[in-house]
Amino acid sequence: MRGRRPNELEAWEAAALIARRELSAEALLLACLERIAARESAVRAFAALDADAALARARALDAGPLRGPLHGLPLGVKDLFDTADLPTSYGTAIHAGHRPAADAAAVALCLEAGAVLVGKTETTELATMQPAPTRNPHDAARSPGGSSSGSVAAVADGMLPIALGTQTAGSIIRPAAYCGIVGYKPSLGRVPRAGIKLQCESMDTAGGFGRSVRDVALLGSVLLGDERLRFGDELFAPRIGLAPTPWWPQADADVQAVWARAVATLAPLASCADAALPAGFDDLVPLQKRLMFHEAARSLSHERVRHRERLSPGLRAMLDEGLAIPVTQYQADLVAAADWKRRIDALFDDHDLLLAPSTTGEAPPIDSTGDPLFCRPWSLLGLPCVHLPFARGASGLPVGLQVVGRHGDDHRLLAAAHWVHQRLIA
Amino acid sequence: MRGRRPNELEAWEAAALIARRELSAEALLLACLERIAARESAVRAFAALDADAALARARALDAGPLRGPLHGLPLGVKDLFDTADLPTSYGTAIHAGHRPAADAAAVALCLEAGAVLVGKTETTELATMQPAPTRNPHDAARSPGGSSSGSVAAVADGMLPIALGTQTAGSIIRPAAYCGIVGYKPSLGRVPRAGIKLQCESMDTAGGFGRSVRDVALLGSVLLGDERLRFGDELFAPRIGLAPTPWWPQADADVQAVWARAVATLAPLASCADAALPAGFDDLVPLQKRLMFHEAARSLSHERVRHRERLSPGLRAMLDEGLAIPVTQYQADLVAAADWKRRIDALFDDHDLLLAPSTTGEAPPIDSTGDPLFCRPWSLLGLPCVHLPFARGASGLPVGLQVVGRHGDDHRLLAAAHWVHQRLIA
Repeated sequence: MRGRRPNELEAWEAAALIARRELSAEALLLACLERIAARESAVRAFAALDADAALARARALDAGPLRGPLHGLPLGVKDLFDTADLPTSYGTAIHAGHRPAADAAAVALCLEAGAVLVGKTETTELATMQPAPTRNPHDAARSPGGSSSGSVAAVADGMLPIALGTQTAGSIIRPAAYCGIVGYKPSLGRVPRAGIKLQCESMDTAGGFGRSVRDVALLGSVLLGDERLRFGDELFAPRIGLAPTPWWPQADADVQAVWARAVATLAPLASCADAALPAGFDDLVPLQKRLMFHEAARSLSHERVRHRERLSPGLRAMLDEGLAIPVTQYQADLVAAADWKRRIDALFDDHDLLLAPSTTGEAPPIDSTGDPLFCRPWSLLGLPCVHLPFARGASGLPVGLQVVGRHGDDHRLLAAAHWVHQRLIA
Repeated sequence: MRGRRPNELEAWEAAALIARRELSAEALLLACLERIAARESAVRAFAALDADAALARARALDAGPLRGPLHGLPLGVKDLFDTADLPTSYGTAIHAGHRPAADAAAVALCLEAGAVLVGKTETTELATMQPAPTRNPHDAARSPGGSSSGSVAAVADGMLPIALGTQTAGSIIRPAAYCGIVGYKPSLGRVPRAGIKLQCESMDTAGGFGRSVRDVALLGSVLLGDERLRFGDELFAPRIGLAPTPWWPQADADVQAVWARAVATLAPLASCADAALPAGFDDLVPLQKRLMFHEAARSLSHERVRHRERLSPGLRAMLDEGLAIPVTQYQADLVAAADWKRRIDALFDDHDLLLAPSTTGEAPPIDSTGDPLFCRPWSLLGLPCVHLPFARGASGLPVGLQVVGRHGDDHRLLAAAHWVHQRLIA
């Protein structure tokens, strides 16, 4: 542990120490709870917290056999996932105090693997754009990003080693970038969504956060039920496709600087070539928005119809806009999205991963969760993405880039992401 | 109404009378409630019922403007859909008395369109194989089929004009066949699943029941948000592909007789040709089972881990079997399923619909919900299906066939199904 407090360890390190009984789940949890006690009033990462239940669970784990790869790791869960033992309000007062019947499947899988549920983390209103109360741990005047606001802030601030989030447009990668941690959005369709408040089934994806690629690989191995994710980090030089994307002019000077630095670092070490994104790639952003708005307007029908006056004006407008999209347009958009998925797959014959911007810049002021622009195309395509933090912008806030892999090749993407990240932070 | 009681009307007829104010929502509901009072103790279709709330709603609808295409229609909802105003237990004592925060999206859409929620209908244990208490209205010693047991029984018995169900293997088409009503499973991915207890995201699909194709088209138009479904019943002679499927030898004499009768009726009126199912089509049944078992084992992790002793032995065994399937097999199965979907699509260049068996025979005894064999391939392929009842078997119980359409062409399938059904019942 080399002088670091347990709550500052990477998750995979803490898990290894606990597995060797060199660290107790209780000691790790107590360090996390101490950090939470010191910082929560400033950061406001949690929508619900049950320290007593978590302590009882940690002690029980310490007294018993190893349960699985997350044994003893304190876990934060975005308040968009149902939990049987903690209230779940999906980021809206409409559902304040709701107690679900069951844990969401992703939560149950983590608990089965030995995780310790510490609390529910704040999300934006129904995982859309209205900000959560959470502050960016690096600067209280800045947004942590959304919609997985509390999960990222808790991990970035040393309150928890790992946490769960979801992404529909940019709700994992963007907040991970703003808070300077690793975020992992798995391939669409590989993590069960039972017990998650669904908004847009074409894209909603559960994933998670940690301090290193190994951390999210460990968590991802449980979410996907695929142990290759945590044993796939052999070193190799991946073929990197450079994909600044058609929206590159909207990347600010900070992002352009980290891009140049990343390319300069990686080009001597690995094959780096421009990725030939298919013509019309810029259609993906409006396509992603139409699908998301239309599906959200239908999936959130209960709130839209029965609690209209309790929705924020922005969400009301988004749902109205989605409802106004003709179903024939929606159906054509689904077909177009499926077609794009087939076309993009061929790109990965030439590249093991794509390097792409995560955000337009550093974290914005707290009245916005920032622009998911650079995440929208990859969310639409259902591709696995990992945000890699490795630099600071002009205001001293975290900046980084994301890597994007072939659909279903999450274990290969994580291995390559680890290789790339090690070099970028070296 | 020509002497029929309101609860015996087809849903589209009742909706038209209500829209013209020739029938009140209250009178229709009262007729349904009277039938429920007379028959529920024998049929046991309902897991929860709120007559007072339904009456208040019906009176409010009668006093106000038309809300939508389902204005005033009493609706039953399978107890796998969340409802904010009625308890939801997903067919298991584990969740007895649970009260969800919100209506499932499909329920909210029906209520927005003017439906009157009457009750929650019985489902099998977590929508799997352990029977619900519901009896077949035609013979109390027989199963109504599952998992949408209560919804089918209520519609078949004249308790309700329409009801919601879900299908993963054969949970809409099979019970519709056993009870002799029309069942409609939409194309995968076209009805939002928010608020449904998910079991297998590769296949779980919400749909519904009525007494005619027009009834399910009316209901489907709301579920899919596509009014072409209810205005698409122009008469035309569809090109019918005959698809007895490789499992034909398992169809009993009753099914073979209705098949022969259907072909004899339709062949003089429309183009009927053998559908050339791709080689290897018989792989689809084991493929469907593996995907379903593996996804169910992960989606139902909360119940599998925390309430193992309260699951039926059959469900425990199914989840254990699913969990033992290697993730690499599962991922290969997902790729194979996607490939099959592409291959099957071409079949619909030559046929407007496929005619196929719905079940192996009449409804079985009540200790089983029957075999979903003939539904599994179409569920795996995500294709829209409509069960058409038109005959009786050797025991006097309903028998019929299903028609299957191209993915996404639900409005064309329903128009063709209406054409076919009119001729089969003529």
